[in-house]
Amino acid sequence: MTFIHDDFMLQNDIAKHLYHDYAKDLPIFDYHCHLDPKQIAEDHSFENITELWLAGDHYKWRAMRANGVSEHKITGHASPEEKFEAWANTAHAAVGNPLFHWTQLELKKYFDIDDLLSGKNWKDVYDKANETLRRENLSARKLVEQSNVAFIGTTDNPTDSLKYHEQIMKDESFKVKVAPSFRPDESFAIGEETFTLFLEKLKEVTGQTADSYSKLVELLEERVEYFDQHGTLASDHGLSELMYAEAVDAEVERIYQKALNQDDLTKDDKAKYVTRLLTDLSGMYHKRGWIMQIHFGAIRNNNEQAFNAIGPDAGFDSIRDQTDVAYALNNLLNAMHQNGTLPKTIVYNLNPQYNHIVASTVANFQSNEEGIKGKVQFGAGWWFNDTEQGMLRQMETLADHGMLMHFVGMLTDSRSFISYPRHDYFRRILCHFVGEQVASGKFPDDESLLKELIENVSYKNAIRYFKK
Amino acid sequence: MTFIHDDFMLQNDIAKHLYHDYAKDLPIFDYHCHLDPKQIAEDHSFENITELWLAGDHYKWRAMRANGVSEHKITGHASPEEKFEAWANTAHAAVGNPLFHWTQLELKKYFDIDDLLSGKNWKDVYDKANETLRRENLSARKLVEQSNVAFIGTTDNPTDSLKYHEQIMKDESFKVKVAPSFRPDESFAIGEETFTLFLEKLKEVTGQTADSYSKLVELLEERVEYFDQHGTLASDHGLSELMYAEAVDAEVERIYQKALNQDDLTKDDKAKYVTRLLTDLSGMYHKRGWIMQIHFGAIRNNNEQAFNAIGPDAGFDSIRDQTDVAYALNNLLNAMHQNGTLPKTIVYNLNPQYNHIVASTVANFQSNEEGIKGKVQFGAGWWFNDTEQGMLRQMETLADHGMLMHFVGMLTDSRSFISYPRHDYFRRILCHFVGEQVASGKFPDDESLLKELIENVSYKNAIRYFKK
Amino acid sequence: MTFIHDDFMLQNDIAKHLYHDYAKDLPIFDYHCHLDPKQIAEDHSFENITELWLAGDHYKWRAMRANGVSEHKITGHASPEEKFEAWANTAHAAVGNPLFHWTQLELKKYFDIDDLLSGKNWKDVYDKANETLRRENLSARKLVEQSNVAFIGTTDNPTDSLKYHEQIMKDESFKVKVAPSFRPDESFAIGEETFTLFLEKLKEVTGQTADSYSKLVELLEERVEYFDQHGTLASDHGLSELMYAEAVDAEVERIYQKALNQDDLTKDDKAKYVTRLLTDLSGMYHKRGWIMQIHFGAIRNNNEQAFNAIGPDAGFDSIRDQTDVAYALNNLLNAMHQNGTLPKTIVYNLNPQYNHIVASTVANFQSNEEGIKGKVQFGAGWWFNDTEQGMLRQMETLADHGMLMHFVGMLTDSRSFISYPRHDYFRRILCHFVGEQVASGKFPDDESLLKELIENVSYKNAIRYFKK
Repeated sequence: MTFIHDDFMLQNDIAKHLYHDYAKDLPIFDYHCHLDPKQIAEDHSFENITELWLAGDHYKWRAMRANGVSEHKITGHASPEEKFEAWANTAHAAVGNPLFHWTQLELKKYFDIDDLLSGKNWKDVYDKANETLRRENLSARKLVEQSNVAFIGTTDNPTDSLKYHEQIMKDESFKVKVAPSFRPDESFAIGEETFTLFLEKLKEVTGQTADSYSKLVELLEERVEYFDQHGTLASDHGLSELMYAEAVDAEVERIYQKALNQDDLTKDDKAKYVTRLLTDLSGMYHKRGWIMQIHFGAIRNNNEQAFNAIGPDAGFDSIRDQTDVAYALNNLLNAMHQNGTLPKTIVYNLNPQYNHIVASTVANFQSNEEGIKGKVQFGAGWWFNDTEQGMLRQMETLADHGMLMHFVGMLTDSRSFISYPRHDYFRRILCHFVGEQVASGKFPDDESLLKELIENVSYKNAIRYFKK
Repeated sequence: MTFIHDDFMLQNDIAKHLYHDYAKDLPIFDYHCHLDPKQIAEDHSFENITELWLAGDHYKWRAMRANGVSEHKITGHASPEEKFEAWANTAHAAVGNPLFHWTQLELKKYFDIDDLLSGKNWKDVYDKANETLRRENLSARKLVEQSNVAFIGTTDNPTDSLKYHEQIMKDESFKVKVAPSFRPDESFAIGEETFTLFLEKLKEVTGQTADSYSKLVELLEERVEYFDQHGTLASDHGLSELMYAEAVDAEVERIYQKALNQDDLTKDDKAKYVTRLLTDLSGMYHKRGWIMQIHFGAIRNNNEQAFNAIGPDAGFDSIRDQTDVAYALNNLLNAMHQNGTLPKTIVYNLNPQYNHIVASTVANFQSNEEGIKGKVQFGAGWWFNDTEQGMLRQMETLADHGMLMHFVGMLTDSRSFISYPRHDYFRRILCHFVGEQVASGKFPDDESLLKELIENVSYKNAIRYFKK
Repeated sequence: MTFIHDDFMLQNDIAKHLYHDYAKDLPIFDYHCHLDPKQIAEDHSFENITELWLAGDHYKWRAMRANGVSEHKITGHASPEEKFEAWANTAHAAVGNPLFHWTQLELKKYFDIDDLLSGKNWKDVYDKANETLRRENLSARKLVEQSNVAFIGTTDNPTDSLKYHEQIMKDESFKVKVAPSFRPDESFAIGEETFTLFLEKLKEVTGQTADSYSKLVELLEERVEYFDQHGTLASDHGLSELMYAEAVDAEVERIYQKALNQDDLTKDDKAKYVTRLLTDLSGMYHKRGWIMQIHFGAIRNNNEQAFNAIGPDAGFDSIRDQTDVAYALNNLLNAMHQNGTLPKTIVYNLNPQYNHIVASTVANFQSNEEGIKGKVQFGAGWWFNDTEQGMLRQMETLADHGMLMHFVGMLTDSRSFISYPRHDYFRRILCHFVGEQVASGKFPDDESLLKELIENVSYKNAIRYFKK
């Protein structure tokens, strides 16, 4: 039997039944990813599997470094063949890491390759994959279509012109819906260089200067409105730490002016600013029926030498710890709830030690709007948790403290056009999890209940949740 | 086969044997719950299953909110039928949540109902349950007796007159022993309104004014003594955070006077006060052979709008994180140990990330009194951990760092007269856990050892531990 | 079947095959332990199994206290028989604790005893074990040799003369390589009494006074060099908390002078000193190709009364929590990496809530030196994690975030000459883990890959990693 086979990850007959009969064929509603709209608009073609697979994938880079590969063959100028060989060696040694499964799932799905990639067969795999790339013209769009994708939510800067999104929308030959998501992280980076640069870009695109906090909010709402007109369904926020600190208008304005003057800001200043801005933005999202996504808990670019040489997002990030997660998250959500501006919200947590806090906190803010099931969501296992163990932890914790039935499920969060098997992987793990529960008598063997559960979490909840 | 059946949760023959032959028929020693002594004293009868099941059960309320039920049907004025229907819909969708199991266990045990409760059959279930309630006159006492309960430890305010406990004690027709537990949380809430109200109630009941810290301690000891004369075996303390800060007498007195004057208190003031008061109380408990219970790690009433509308304890609480848990818990226990006032103590932890700290800390203070096994206990999975996963985590961690054999086991912690199946659930999970260990050869298949283990944790340890 | 048997802990045929064919017979490379070099040099003989087993083993002491044994029979003056009987009673009740397995593994391996130790058979076991001790002359060296040990890394004070190591090295009759490890914890304990005592010992052994920070560093390097000449391969550092704070030379010097003057130091002072000293030492290790080990997260000697009566390391320690683990560890490693002084490093974490942080942080500093696989390691389950659950957690987390294939594997960390079965235990758990993965189709059933994985983690990685 090949390593990837029909029943991969499915350990009992119930799991197999649930997967094959309910999960497998559902479309993919990929509500959060980092695909490049330009590559979709232009239907980018890939030179070779090295470009498709290794350019930009810092998960793989990290594994290669752990495998003793020199940076030259990772992000340097080595040839595509050298890089692929180095990756093949690494992939083989990565058994136990999710990359091992992803690699084989992707080889199987897009290239019909069953062999385990290794230093021994890298050349055959390389040639065969490249041949398939060419023969089947596996361009960006072709890969998406082949993956049964119904929706793609990209991740975009508020200052983006969205011209590629416009181009995609106008092009009727591409049937997959693609929408931008609003990610204003730079507007939160008060006191940092990126913040200043963001204000400049914002000036360029709006023709106005954010010379006060209230003006900033006004300009951001202009951009929110612009995104809304371009079909946006969601925003996203990456916060290294969750913080909560109240401040009256005048104080927020004073902090903002300090930032404009390049004065030093205290941690408390930043907390007050972040609290206010997020709260103000929540109202814009709520008004338009958007989903607010919050990703928290990453500490990034920790290797200074590598950051200087390679830049950000190059595989030198880790999981962060902080204090008062429960205090901050409860108070943030409460402030919005109290204002009547709490949108549907998904909270993604990077540090699994906080899973129980997040799951038990989102449950405090479900109420008030009849008929919305799971209004505030504990998001799927993110980044370092995008593994079998991480997914199971998230689902078990969610089930313990809330309703698995209403979970909006998986997203790729990927920069790659061949990461869609992660949805398949997730569904297999979901079906395995449920199958085990049924086999051990913990879930009832109730066909309609199980069907509903599997279909909801695989696809239907996301569709319903992201409907404006 | 029905969903709840004889071997529910029992996955192998050893587990089945252990449960059926050793665990199942043991009485229940429910040393910590929130049953209302008045309802016991007056042998309360329930109007219908909605009153019995949904009034006061904020676990169910929370699930209903996540299921998109409006507050009207949860804590509002909807009819019992409407509320029950809303709960039935929710219960069905809650598969995976402990409420799903509890619901079916309770329907089976008290109403002989095997069907899975859902929006389809809610009316039949409602009618049948109500009919049984009436026909069998399932009053408060009847439910307790039917549940094979040997002891009930309620949770009571130090200012309580204990008149219902007196009434129960005098009534020889009720064979179950019921004792009050001393829960002086309000005396710890220095600087808060509840603290001031508590002092007033304390004045009413003692006829004296706690106008100094030393006077407060004196009056509290008066109440401890009063409780002791009413059969109290345990105290209980709910602390949001564990804190430890030393202070000399004069400083504690100064902090207390600040509180009486409504002056602002620092976090350090509060830590000093809490440290001292808990230490002083420990001496009173130790002297009387009481158990001291500490529950820590909840952040409560986080939804302000709901708090204002519904009040406290309405299902808007979550798990808290803090810093220096290990420092605080070690130092608190050490201070009491050093004073010679450390009573037998059970520490319940709400945040599972601290399980290992608690388990490895209680083990530092076991010594000194020959013959007491497991003097300081890591308590059973509490509240958000009162789930299969939570119980297993607690038992595995306890076994790793201490002695499962001496664990005092389960408690209901419930406000409901039909929560006793949680003991049954716990025993099934315990037997399953041990059964798996035996089947995999990790525990020896030694009949007398296994019998001892199961009986101890199910019942016998609690009996021994709570013997004065 | 006896409790300990050939397939103990091995749950399927693949696990059995992997263990018996690849893992079992590999030698033990015990790169970190606390064996006494004097006892090796002098080939110490043990009076009886009580001396061999109970003297110095604070894991067993702790369990005995939880079992209600008086201190007299633990660390007091009770007879060897009394102590052994008390331990036998405890061991039996400790089912579920790793001590239960260790006890039976050690009885089986060294004394061919299959019975479960208990209060019933303690005298027979005691007599039989003592007879075997005498008959087979199970001295320190004999026990090591019988355990198939290839290398022992002891743990030594920088001021140690290493005379016993010299004696061992010169003695050609003992084939096992024994090397000292450099553990300068006392030099980090600035502001504490042990620090002052350390400076005095350092003066004795070097003939010079560490009257400045730069002089301290110079003298420490003298000792590092001395250790290097005695075959040292590794250093070790026990840090209660991970801290990071930068300081210029003058500030570090100023802090050092404050310490010499017995002035009070702030927490920030200490953080700056520790950061600098560790960074400076890293350069010495890096230059010599040593491994740097860091153990963090213990809070020690928490029971003051017991500390005063018995002393340190007597079983009154627990797992610590702190803030900003990710910040501190990333910055420490980055500082060294940035200086070009980051040695091969193993980070051992006591608090499992930080496993994910450690695993995802070490992965940030793997790069730069072609060919070193797993340069910075997430160390094996340490102390309170040296249990089946703890080992599995460590391996699963490592696999999720890095490369299990390059894991340097197990160490005893023990003071006892009969703790070697912990390597065997680890290998069984490893083979079980991998066996389960293969059986469920998550790891490929690829013989050469599995062989490589098992042999690497059991032995070969350690050999390669500790090669200078």
